[in-house]
Amino acid sequence: MSSESLLEQLIQSLRCLPGVGPKSAQRMALHLLERDRDGGNHLSTVLEEAMERIGRCGICRNLTEQEICQICANDQRDKTLLCIVESPSDVIAIEQATGYRGRYFVLLGRLSPLDGIGPAELGLEQLGEQLNKQPPGEMIIATNPTVEGEATAYYLQRMAQKHGVMVSRIAHGVPLGGELEFTDQSTIAHAFSSRLTV
Amino acid sequence: MSSESLLEQLIQSLRCLPGVGPKSAQRMALHLLERDRDGGNHLSTVLEEAMERIGRCGICRNLTEQEICQICANDQRDKTLLCIVESPSDVIAIEQATGYRGRYFVLLGRLSPLDGIGPAELGLEQLGEQLNKQPPGEMIIATNPTVEGEATAYYLQRMAQKHGVMVSRIAHGVPLGGELEFTDQSTIAHAFSSRLTV
Repeated sequence: MSSESLLEQLIQSLRCLPGVGPKSAQRMALHLLERDRDGGNHLSTVLEEAMERIGRCGICRNLTEQEICQICANDQRDKTLLCIVESPSDVIAIEQATGYRGRYFVLLGRLSPLDGIGPAELGLEQLGEQLNKQPPGEMIIATNPTVEGEATAYYLQRMAQKHGVMVSRIAHGVPLGGELEFTDQSTIAHAFSSRLTV
Repeated sequence: MSSESLLEQLIQSLRCLPGVGPKSAQRMALHLLERDRDGGNHLSTVLEEAMERIGRCGICRNLTEQEICQICANDQRDKTLLCIVESPSDVIAIEQATGYRGRYFVLLGRLSPLDGIGPAELGLEQLGEQLNKQPPGEMIIATNPTVEGEATAYYLQRMAQKHGVMVSRIAHGVPLGGELEFTDQSTIAHAFSSRLTV
């Protein structure tokens, strides 16, 4: 075979996308070339700009192309509420699902000492300074209910209490529309022990 | 909300890829931004170049960034064999699966008068000229066994016979590893009537 053709290079480079194997990459490349050149051109322009310009918000560590992200820069948002999440996708999920109007702090990970991820990697010093300078009225912990997420939540709770900030956690239990029969045992056990008086 | 952020633009433009909905696009964008900036940069470069430079081969109409594609330009390939396929992905499939060393002609579609796709759109005049000037010893029809593919195959067969070129078609029947029990009726009927003496 002679050297790799541009089409083969395109198929290969599309495989850096998560969940895209050789067949999907080929389908994507041929689709763009045969039917959607405008879409392909637009994607390459936006992608180049995004990779170059998107960085971290100086306050909440969320992804943004500005110094300070849109949410932190928005004066309308409630500065007395601070929600701690693990990743930028959690911010998007909460923004889409709820009417939450407070601010966020994005850890970009969770405590995992074995992987070398400690408080420094999660920006917890930066969070500590913020709690010192501008303590929010309530800190809402929304880390994932996994082992590491729970450890992170516990650490955050201790931090907030040290600064005299009220802490809350989002509720965990049987998901809406779920059925007890098909819910895993630990979720049921948790939902049962965390029952609320009505 | 203020104007669309670069992240939202990136998620939106990833949706031009086939099979990518809002959730996958978000996952792809965040993956590239958080974990694979190099891959994203490389993809944007290759994509831009591919969209600008990849066109049609002057001989076989396959996708290529050169005037003449690698297969047509290869003197080692057998010029007495010509395989007619519907799309560039068929060329890739045949190259990967078989030891075929002849040339191709890519229709880029199939006859479909209702959609305004006639012989001219499939480059059949160009094919006719080639059959005139340099008639191959054998023309292998490998259109898909759909209604339109069959109509196209019939048209191609007539064309070849007019030029005195021998025609063959790839075999259709029960796929290898398939089970009769789970094969559709028309495939079984075709396989039965096309049985070969051994």
